[in-house]
Formats: sequence, structure tokens, C-alpha cells
Amino acid sequence: MSATALTIPLWADLLAVSIGSLQGALFASQFRDRRVDLLGVAIIGTATGLGGGILRDLLLGEVPRAMQSNWYLAAAVLAALLGMLLQRLFTRLAAFITVLDALTIGLFGAIGSTKALAMGLPEIPAVFVGVVSAVGGSVLRDLLMNLTIAMMHVGSLYAVAAGAGTAVLVGLVAFGVPTLVAALAGATTTVLLRLLAVRFGWTLPEQRALSRLPRWRRPR
Amino acid sequence: MSATALTIPLWADLLAVSIGSLQGALFASQFRDRRVDLLGVAIIGTATGLGGGILRDLLLGEVPRAMQSNWYLAAAVLAALLGMLLQRLFTRLAAFITVLDALTIGLFGAIGSTKALAMGLPEIPAVFVGVVSAVGGSVLRDLLMNLTIAMMHVGSLYAVAAGAGTAVLVGLVAFGVPTLVAALAGATTTVLLRLLAVRFGWTLPEQRALSRLPRWRRPR
Amino acid sequence: MSATALTIPLWADLLAVSIGSLQGALFASQFRDRRVDLLGVAIIGTATGLGGGILRDLLLGEVPRAMQSNWYLAAAVLAALLGMLLQRLFTRLAAFITVLDALTIGLFGAIGSTKALAMGLPEIPAVFVGVVSAVGGSVLRDLLMNLTIAMMHVGSLYAVAAGAGTAVLVGLVAFGVPTLVAALAGATTTVLLRLLAVRFGWTLPEQRALSRLPRWRRPR
Repeated sequence: MSATALTIPLWADLLAVSIGSLQGALFASQFRDRRVDLLGVAIIGTATGLGGGILRDLLLGEVPRAMQSNWYLAAAVLAALLGMLLQRLFTRLAAFITVLDALTIGLFGAIGSTKALAMGLPEIPAVFVGVVSAVGGSVLRDLLMNLTIAMMHVGSLYAVAAGAGTAVLVGLVAFGVPTLVAALAGATTTVLLRLLAVRFGWTLPEQRALSRLPRWRRPR
Repeated sequence: MSATALTIPLWADLLAVSIGSLQGALFASQFRDRRVDLLGVAIIGTATGLGGGILRDLLLGEVPRAMQSNWYLAAAVLAALLGMLLQRLFTRLAAFITVLDALTIGLFGAIGSTKALAMGLPEIPAVFVGVVSAVGGSVLRDLLMNLTIAMMHVGSLYAVAAGAGTAVLVGLVAFGVPTLVAALAGATTTVLLRLLAVRFGWTLPEQRALSRLPRWRRPR
Repeated sequence: MSATALTIPLWADLLAVSIGSLQGALFASQFRDRRVDLLGVAIIGTATGLGGGILRDLLLGEVPRAMQSNWYLAAAVLAALLGMLLQRLFTRLAAFITVLDALTIGLFGAIGSTKALAMGLPEIPAVFVGVVSAVGGSVLRDLLMNLTIAMMHVGSLYAVAAGAGTAVLVGLVAFGVPTLVAALAGATTTVLLRLLAVRFGWTLPEQRALSRLPRWRRPR
């Protein structure tokens, strides 16, 4: 069950952080009526990019990796400012950003759950830590902007894609598949699910009580 | 002053988590206009059930117990889904749920403050950790749903019941009473206060400045 | 690059916590329509006073200092109740409170960043930890009151003052200046910037895209 932590190159980790941060800033920039100032956009971008990793490390009882190097905060703040300044350009690149973002949640989920497995956490918490790594940044973004958490609402399968991918990863590791292979399979699952959900508008059913389940449950 | 941590059977801990989670899901299910989807209800239920314990362990500098076993997350998610599917049934059992919930905050408060004392925390922080354990889940629920925190508002004495019970516990331990006895007395205090507050509609006075204190302070 | 942690007398630390807590309670008391009760005001005040320090210690992987002594919570709760009871008096002392508050964010920022440096964190994270120490309480206050985070919006330079001061501190330590001298210079920078911003109504520009930057960027 033990896994070696997935060591990815620093540049890949920073790229993922930067994409998250850039997206967070683009998102915050839309809300002109909220009069978010320059600093606010930088803060929200940074929180989006770094939030998942910081929550992951807090759950694992470690000093957050973003606190142990100058690069993470610098990359996150620069990406947020870039996102704000060049928002027209990036808005035109929306499809490209969506792909990058899908790669980012796939990567963050894989890093989070392999790190959790490597520290000896059981399977279900390892999946949970992976999901928190992947979506924590966007939850933090919505909390700081006082919006309803996007992930909670009927929409494209963001957290589900992260959960399915990390579950695949953890399951493969449990069957003895090498960590790197499992991580690639898990991240690919997340990326594909996320992109297909965006492309075909897949959503989860709204919550419903048993009495309103599909007719075959209660024929008359 | 030192206390041995209250070791309760795993099934009791999981029962408390499940009741919290079930309640959180029932609560989230009411808000149809917010279009919380299946996943959202599961997330909010899980956060309600596990939030108090996770915040407790973060404050104590430990890896959250819910991360160290498969059972906690599994129980929380299943209870949340059950709460959503069977909401009509549970709504009819409202009185029963209220009693279970009072037991849960009593139990969580006692576990939290004895754990804090066992780790060498002083009395006042031990009471604080107990209260956070008891009410943290419902605070997290309201944050994630972007609602005003229920606990802050005029209503039945939720946090006060937790605070009184953990204060009784910590006080008794300080006078040399064995941990188990103190924990029972503390939890009983919380449960009774909470149920009496619900039954008789007790509330705290709204905030007021000195100039509007009761007349006997400023006779004329 | 290493710095000795700034040990300040307990009374000074408690004074800073109390001022933060008192301010938080005054702030919460304004919102009569939200029907925040006595307990809510006490909770919000306490969260404002202690939040920055608790977030700082969580980021540094330590048991929060407020959990290691009875004094912090006691001082925070008492100050919050005092703020609520004497709000008319304190409202008249607004200018005095603004000065005390500027001192508080200067002090919290200096304590936070020297503590981070002493634990071996690099420069940029040390500045970040200082800013979180200084403004974390007010962010937590706004989250708990379900308000938009004040710091995000066009207004007086709260977080910027904290960031500039801690950057001065960290920069001076990097050039070999003794910690105490650097801390004094950093805290003074924060206090002055904050007071000047309040006095002259300085604000940050609102966010803007490149196409709407000042005319000299795009002459026609």
C-alpha cells in the first residue's frame, strides 16, 4: 500500500500554481461591481493558486511547501497580476485555459494523493487529500469573494473529475502498480472527465429525495 | 491538571460523526433554490460531520484523526447520502434527531477538551478546543453554504451549551476528579442545557450597549 | 539570513490581541439588523484578536501560541465584551483606536515575520506570514460575519501597509541588520503608511486591463 511520493520537477509544480493563480485573477476581474482593487485581485489569484497545496499540507501536518521556497508565492503573485493585466487576451484563449486548468487539477490531485499515500495515510483519506489539493484553491477563492462555492452547484463535474482520478490512482497503487504509472493513469482520468464534462455539458443530478427518484423505482 | 485522553470506542466516534453528517445533509437539502447538487449535499454533510474534529486536531498540531483511518470519511459520506435520500423520514423524526445531535455536541466537546488537557494545554484553551470540536462542523457548513453563521445569531444556546459543559469538565479535572467522571458530567451538562434551550426557547440577549442595560442599572 | 525571533513582553502581545478583539467587537456591534447576539459579538471579537496569530502558527506548523496559555483567550474575550458594553465611549475615541490599531498591525506583522525567519523560512514566505499575522484577524472576522472581505476592496491601504513594513523588516535582516532594529523599522513603516493612508484617504487603483491603462501607454 505504501507509495513513493511523486516528485515532479519544480517548474511543473510552479506552472500548475501559476495557471491556478492566473485563472483566479481572471475570475475575480469579472466582478467589476464588487470593486475589487488591484490588491484584491492579487490576493484572490494567489489564494486560488496556492490554496489547494496549503490545505493539503495542513491536513498532512506539514509546513506548507509554498512556505519553504520563495518561488511559489512569487510565481502566484506574478501570474495573478499578469492575468489581470492581460484579461482580454486570456479571455480570447478561454479554450486553451480550460485545457490547462484540467491538466492542473489532474496534476494537483495526483501530487496530493501520492504524497498522502507516501506518508502512510489509508486509501480513502488519500483520495480526499487529492481532491482537496485539486479543488481547494477554487473553494478558497469563492470564500474570499463571498460567493456561493461554485463546486457545490449544478455544473460541470469539477470535483467529481478530481475524485475519480485520485480514486483510480489510489486503487492502482493498492494493486501494486508503480506510483508513476498510477499517477499518470489517475491524472489522465481527471483531465479526460473534466474536458468531456465541459464539452458535453455533463452535470450531476440535483439532490432529490427517494420519493422523487426515477419512475422505475415506484411503478404504478 | 493533567488528564488522560478520553478514549471512546471507534463506533461511538463514528456514530457522532454520522449524526453530524446526516444533519448537515438534511440542512443543505432544504435549500432547493440554491440548486445544491448531489455532490454539494455530500460535501456539506461530510464537512459538518468531520469539521469539528479536523479543526480540533489542527489546533492541537496533529494530523486529523479522520485522515488516519478509512472509516471516518466513509461513515460521513454514507450518512450524508442517507440523509439526503431519506429526508422525508428524517424530517418526521426531528425530535429524535435533536436529541441525537445534543448527544453529539456533548460527546464531541468532551472528547475535544480531554484530548487538549491530555496534551498539556491550560484550562481556558482546553475549553476552547472543546467548543470548537462541538460547533466547528456547523460553522464550516454555514461557511460553505455562504449563509450567516447560525451560531452567531439569536437562537437556541448551541455554543453556550458546549462551552458550559466543557467548562464543567475542565473544572472538575482541575479539582482532581477522574477524567471519565468529569467527561460524563460535562457531556451531561451540555446535553441538558441544549435540550432545555430547545424545549423552552431560551436565547441569549441581543448585544446592547451599557446605556440600554436593564432599568435597575440606571434608575430615574 | 537567520534571525532570532522577536521576543516581546507578554503584556505587549496581550495588548495587541486585546485591541484587535475590541475593534472586532465594535465592528460587529454596528450590524444591528443582523441580530448578532452577545455570544456572536464575543466570538467575532475573539476571532479578530486571535485569528492572525492562530493562522500564523498553523502556517508555521506550530500549536498556536493562544492555545498554550490561559491569557490570550481570556484577554480576547474580556476585550470583546468591553468593546460591546462601552461602544459609545469607544466610538468617540475613534481616532485613538485607529492609532492603536495601526500599532497593532505593525507589531503583529513584525512578530510574524521575525518568527518565520527564525524558523528558517525564506524571505518571501516570511513577508507573507507577517502579512497574514497582521490582517488574518480581520479576514476571519469578515468571513464569520458573511461580509465581503474588507481588505479586498478599494479602501485605505491596510494589507499594503503590513506588506511594506514586513518587506522592510525582512530586507534589513537580509542585509545583516540586527532583528530588533529591523523589526522597529518595519513596524514603524507599517504604522506610518497606515496612518497616512487613513489621514489622506489613499487608495489603490481599481483593477484594470491593459487597454485601459493611463493614456501615456497608448497615445493617439
